[in-house]
Amino acid sequence: MDKLETPSATDEVVIRSAELKDCEEIVRLIMELAEFENMADRVTMTAQILRNDCFDEKPKCSCVVASKEDDQSCLVGYSLFYPVYSTWVGASLYLEDLYVTPSYRSRGIGKQLCQKVTQIGLEMGCNRIDLTVLDWNKTAKDMYERYGFVDLTSKEDFHTMRLERGGMENFVKKSKCKNGI
Amino acid sequence: MDKLETPSATDEVVIRSAELKDCEEIVRLIMELAEFENMADRVTMTAQILRNDCFDEKPKCSCVVASKEDDQSCLVGYSLFYPVYSTWVGASLYLEDLYVTPSYRSRGIGKQLCQKVTQIGLEMGCNRIDLTVLDWNKTAKDMYERYGFVDLTSKEDFHTMRLERGGMENFVKKSKCKNGI
Repeated sequence: MDKLETPSATDEVVIRSAELKDCEEIVRLIMELAEFENMADRVTMTAQILRNDCFDEKPKCSCVVASKEDDQSCLVGYSLFYPVYSTWVGASLYLEDLYVTPSYRSRGIGKQLCQKVTQIGLEMGCNRIDLTVLDWNKTAKDMYERYGFVDLTSKEDFHTMRLERGGMENFVKKSKCKNGI
Repeated sequence: MDKLETPSATDEVVIRSAELKDCEEIVRLIMELAEFENMADRVTMTAQILRNDCFDEKPKCSCVVASKEDDQSCLVGYSLFYPVYSTWVGASLYLEDLYVTPSYRSRGIGKQLCQKVTQIGLEMGCNRIDLTVLDWNKTAKDMYERYGFVDLTSKEDFHTMRLERGGMENFVKKSKCKNGI
């Protein structure tokens, strides 16, 4: 643990599970991250969608947040994750986002968020954690590598492919299969 | 639809949801795919694990299979998928595996499996489908591109990173955080 990551340097921040009332703040940080990635125009998420999806009877994801100790309604970071499934090793976890607002960086908050998610993953019986990072974001990549993550795209040529909603609809329209599709 | 994908060319195969009794066959095909990818040594999956994980009260994944019409216990292909969650667009689907055994290829079975998964994704309200492909597997990449998928790694520099179970345990051991981690 380096000097910047001693507990005393982060004593003004609390790492805790997200609550329903945090959704506005989480979406504010989601937008901050998307702006940093130059992709804010693609975000259709709203606090209402997140409330419905993360806090109903069957939550679609989980979220751990970093809040100010003296004002826990104010968030300075978040990590959003959900269970996935590997046909090689079974139960796994996907870390969708890990973000700390710039003025709170270099204090070990990102590491604490990632450790919290990892601890939850272990308790869930997950056998690995996957995530996606933009290759130009060297700070994030270096951080994850320090935590032990391996870049599978560089090492093993794994590529991510995506079909958006419009493409899904087009692809199914073409279906002429007789098997009830 | 090209000549090889007319219904009459696939009339001996049925596309259907997987059942508990299919798990032995699905794991046989999971191993075939892993061998093709030169990664069979990493597979710890068994039929019993799959039965427990996919057919209990809270299934961790779903599976659609291609079975012989005259012997539905014999599978020639499968697709395994599960819901994920995007902080940009909300509910999404991840296609973990799509595989057709070599002697049944070029008959449109892979396309039918992928269309079935896409149809299920639309019915679930999913806004996109993601998958991972090995870049050297040009046949698979070309196929997904014909279906409308975009290679995000080539286009936008997305890299997949992974922390395995041992790495998760090591990472958490290092935690000295006072916030209950």
